[in-house]
Amino acid sequence: MRALRRRLTRAGLSGLIVTHLPDLRYLCGFTGSSAALAVTRWRACLFTDGRYGQQASEETQAAKVEVVTSSAAVAAVQWMAAQPGVRLAGFDPAWTSVAELARWKAALPGRLRRSLLAAVPGPMVERLRAVKDDDELVLMTEAARTGCTLFERILKYIRPGMAEVEIAAELEHQARLLGAEGMSFETIVASGARSALPHGRATGIPLPRRGFLTLDFGIIRNGYCSDMTRTIFLGKPRANERSVYQAVLEAQETAVATVAAGVRCGDVDEAARSILRREGLAEAFSHSTGHGVGLEIHEPPRIGAGQTSKLMPGMVVTIEPGVYLAGRFGIRIEDMVAVARTGRQILTPAPKALIEL
Amino acid sequence: MRALRRRLTRAGLSGLIVTHLPDLRYLCGFTGSSAALAVTRWRACLFTDGRYGQQASEETQAAKVEVVTSSAAVAAVQWMAAQPGVRLAGFDPAWTSVAELARWKAALPGRLRRSLLAAVPGPMVERLRAVKDDDELVLMTEAARTGCTLFERILKYIRPGMAEVEIAAELEHQARLLGAEGMSFETIVASGARSALPHGRATGIPLPRRGFLTLDFGIIRNGYCSDMTRTIFLGKPRANERSVYQAVLEAQETAVATVAAGVRCGDVDEAARSILRREGLAEAFSHSTGHGVGLEIHEPPRIGAGQTSKLMPGMVVTIEPGVYLAGRFGIRIEDMVAVARTGRQILTPAPKALIEL
Repeated sequence: MRALRRRLTRAGLSGLIVTHLPDLRYLCGFTGSSAALAVTRWRACLFTDGRYGQQASEETQAAKVEVVTSSAAVAAVQWMAAQPGVRLAGFDPAWTSVAELARWKAALPGRLRRSLLAAVPGPMVERLRAVKDDDELVLMTEAARTGCTLFERILKYIRPGMAEVEIAAELEHQARLLGAEGMSFETIVASGARSALPHGRATGIPLPRRGFLTLDFGIIRNGYCSDMTRTIFLGKPRANERSVYQAVLEAQETAVATVAAGVRCGDVDEAARSILRREGLAEAFSHSTGHGVGLEIHEPPRIGAGQTSKLMPGMVVTIEPGVYLAGRFGIRIEDMVAVARTGRQILTPAPKALIEL
Repeated sequence: MRALRRRLTRAGLSGLIVTHLPDLRYLCGFTGSSAALAVTRWRACLFTDGRYGQQASEETQAAKVEVVTSSAAVAAVQWMAAQPGVRLAGFDPAWTSVAELARWKAALPGRLRRSLLAAVPGPMVERLRAVKDDDELVLMTEAARTGCTLFERILKYIRPGMAEVEIAAELEHQARLLGAEGMSFETIVASGARSALPHGRATGIPLPRRGFLTLDFGIIRNGYCSDMTRTIFLGKPRANERSVYQAVLEAQETAVATVAAGVRCGDVDEAARSILRREGLAEAFSHSTGHGVGLEIHEPPRIGAGQTSKLMPGMVVTIEPGVYLAGRFGIRIEDMVAVARTGRQILTPAPKALIEL
């Protein structure tokens, strides 16, 4: 909250309306699914509805709690308007819909309708969230380790003929038993030619006797997301399957090795891309190299071509190059990597050499 | 798509930009997580990125597919601007952020920046989605039945001393095995005094020897969400616990009995609320009576106090009154109900008399 207030002052704002739930959780600890937070330089108030009254008063730190029967966000805007000394309050235009902003303005008295609210120039809270403090890094390390434990367990479970969804079901079940609150995104289990779908949902299709199997999954633990991908082989890979795997692995490891404070995100992406280009696989790598991760599965920074923003100590990003050959097979390898003061720390210690089952 | 085009014509629009994923799925069948659709009176084009190229061409109906390397929504807006005869294109202000709209406008040539895009007056596609056709009703009936099967299975699994999360884990595992793609929201397992939290997340807390246990869960199957709640009792309930349960059950059944085409949503809410008011429990019922459900877990219509919109045949809503006595206990009972041409059909046949385990 203190760091946010410094940023508010620097941006010439006397307050901020926060409605994006991960931002709320980050700033005041509230974990429910409906609330709005108004922050001024001196005060903060969380508005929520009757379903969350008790939970909000138990969880919320550094803000007063008000239970309202109408829109929490409108109540937050009206509270803001009534604070003495508040002239200009920011809101995040990325998390405020056009319709919502119209409702907020309609609830303000005429003279404030045009003057009170201003879109903040960049994602103010998300930028704070991008740099994790030590407590957060502990939680993220735990989440990533739980992911690795899950990978070990699922390797022992996989049998030929099993349906992709059975693997997803077992993985998610074990995740719960290991203390996950849920999965951070829809589990990807894509086998055979389906591994060429970068986001292949698990289907009822039985595993082929031979072919790649991509597992891309993440858990949520204490609010923080993990994200990892491993591609394994069922049966014996052919020489060209092995060599494409090696190319992806080299691209991944090369990109990981460039992760360090002060490095441009675009340069990390290029590190992976240049390896695949050398192997004639540039076209087959159809997405960015990675993304920030934390309370949300996708957060700043974006590790993509041309991104000029620089990595900072405390950022946690995924490094996940892939190659997708439509109708044939696909391979992706992904770790979570924390940017350290010097160098980096890989949060996903699971092995990456090609596993043959 | 045809019904949408009629609505566009009626609203004086020559096109619509669609970015909300459930709307996309509804209109053209695409199930990926990143795309935008541009619809004119004569043509439709889906824009997505490289990760979804193959999937989009397999799934998409009634629209051309274009894979783009930059923003899919910006590409859709630019395509729209280039269509002959398109003067005014709508977008849904509830699903378009202030930042996104600014990006769209910045990508248009100067003269179109002010004139091309207009917020549609109400949720155009969501309103179509609110009324389910026969195929959708079959899928929703299946999803709701799967929910009931899950409830039966979990009843057999629950044992005293078990942690709430174990129950959630087993429920979610069984859901997968029954063909669910995932859960439609975070499973609620709230026991003892925690049942007074309307949205009590499952915790590691062991079940008490006596007390209420609320299970509120939903699955996603073929894209459609189910939603049901049952509150059971562990041990022997006291007379007052029994009588509050009866009051909630009466409120729920009374509200269900009012569901019919032409009835105002606010009147359905009032049917439940008036029963609880009579029992002196009005204050303890701190949320709305229900909501529409379909491709999303919360859709129009809202079954809340004062809502004047009317139920239409084909709508599917939840009816879920509850009573929450902080520090003591809570009870909620929820069914999915389809509005028929005459009367209604309850999609959740699981028993509602108080179960004592």
